[in-house]
Amino acid sequence: MTTSPLRAHVQPRTTARPIPQQRRTQAQRRAESERRLLDAAAELIVERGIEGTSLAEIGRVAGYSHGLVHQRFGSKEALVERLNTEAVRMFTTATLAAVGTTRGLAALRIVADTYLDLVQAEDPLGRVHLVVWTEAVARASERRSYRVTWDRYFRSAFAQLILDAAADGTVRSDVDVDAMSMVVVGLLRGVALQLMLDPAGATAETRAAVLDHLTRMLAAD
Amino acid sequence: MTTSPLRAHVQPRTTARPIPQQRRTQAQRRAESERRLLDAAAELIVERGIEGTSLAEIGRVAGYSHGLVHQRFGSKEALVERLNTEAVRMFTTATLAAVGTTRGLAALRIVADTYLDLVQAEDPLGRVHLVVWTEAVARASERRSYRVTWDRYFRSAFAQLILDAAADGTVRSDVDVDAMSMVVVGLLRGVALQLMLDPAGATAETRAAVLDHLTRMLAAD
Repeated sequence: MTTSPLRAHVQPRTTARPIPQQRRTQAQRRAESERRLLDAAAELIVERGIEGTSLAEIGRVAGYSHGLVHQRFGSKEALVERLNTEAVRMFTTATLAAVGTTRGLAALRIVADTYLDLVQAEDPLGRVHLVVWTEAVARASERRSYRVTWDRYFRSAFAQLILDAAADGTVRSDVDVDAMSMVVVGLLRGVALQLMLDPAGATAETRAAVLDHLTRMLAAD
Repeated sequence: MTTSPLRAHVQPRTTARPIPQQRRTQAQRRAESERRLLDAAAELIVERGIEGTSLAEIGRVAGYSHGLVHQRFGSKEALVERLNTEAVRMFTTATLAAVGTTRGLAALRIVADTYLDLVQAEDPLGRVHLVVWTEAVARASERRSYRVTWDRYFRSAFAQLILDAAADGTVRSDVDVDAMSMVVVGLLRGVALQLMLDPAGATAETRAAVLDHLTRMLAAD
């Protein structure tokens, strides 16, 4: 199972420096088992899709019983929702850290770059949202509604970044913010999905082209 | 079942002006049953995904037996491949008709506009490639390889359009053609998928923003 420093914030790794003679509390054991189950779920779902992954398989890969997976998450839908929440938290944490005090168009470029970094990172948590999202396209009724909510949230976050950058004068002021958010999100996801299918295309030139492109389309003259 | 004028080229509609006293040949009946089965398959796959659609269901919706579907296509994989071929043919025909004698950057804009038209048209044949493609992302081994081949073909078609437009001076000459093809395809697919999930976002402003954007990123100064 892959792990990454980016995951560190999700749950404190109590196993890193074990303290002898002191038993872990129930809360610590619970946090540890949840983290391992979410890691296993991300790995399996990215490899096989939601439909192709069972709770039993997730438990097996994480080293727990089927019963414990049910006890922790209740259903596959609930686990997928939780996994998505963790992915959002991880993206938010990584992005805020990368952006730091940068503002305006430069911040937008950093967010886009961080997004592509996480999608291509070893940790499958950075890709799981794409699999969940694309399965929602192919499965009309069941998963579409909560994907739509998340899609709108994701676009509104970019809309805010674009508004901030227009306010500080680094993004042109005639941008239609809602339409441009759809374009930016579309571009990032569309490129990310091509890279997932065909990693050979993931060259430094592609990456530079995506970011240049973002600048070209948004920069104030 | 939905049909559209765009579908007319797929098979001649012999039922439009029936000629009394003349029985249809076996080839005509075969063409008619294939067309109806492909229509039903596109409709069901767009609604439920490949996994959620059975050959028996396709036969039922088209008004044929399960046996006939097997006889015509052999397997679901073969049917999906055939459906994709029909979608490519339909896109090619519609795009060539829309482009006419236009060349350069203007032709690129027309191709992008036609792509979004077909994705949002009533006929599900215009959307089926997105479902097939997104399911390939979620199902690593089985369908990925032939999607990759098609992805590369699709990008190379855009690369050719960009090269043509650079040659006639309407697209800037410093474009990295391979990287920009991935950007253009990513943008179009990423926007198309958002629109499929959330049709409320499909406003005239979004559409205009996508095309303006394409111009802005590619136009010669």
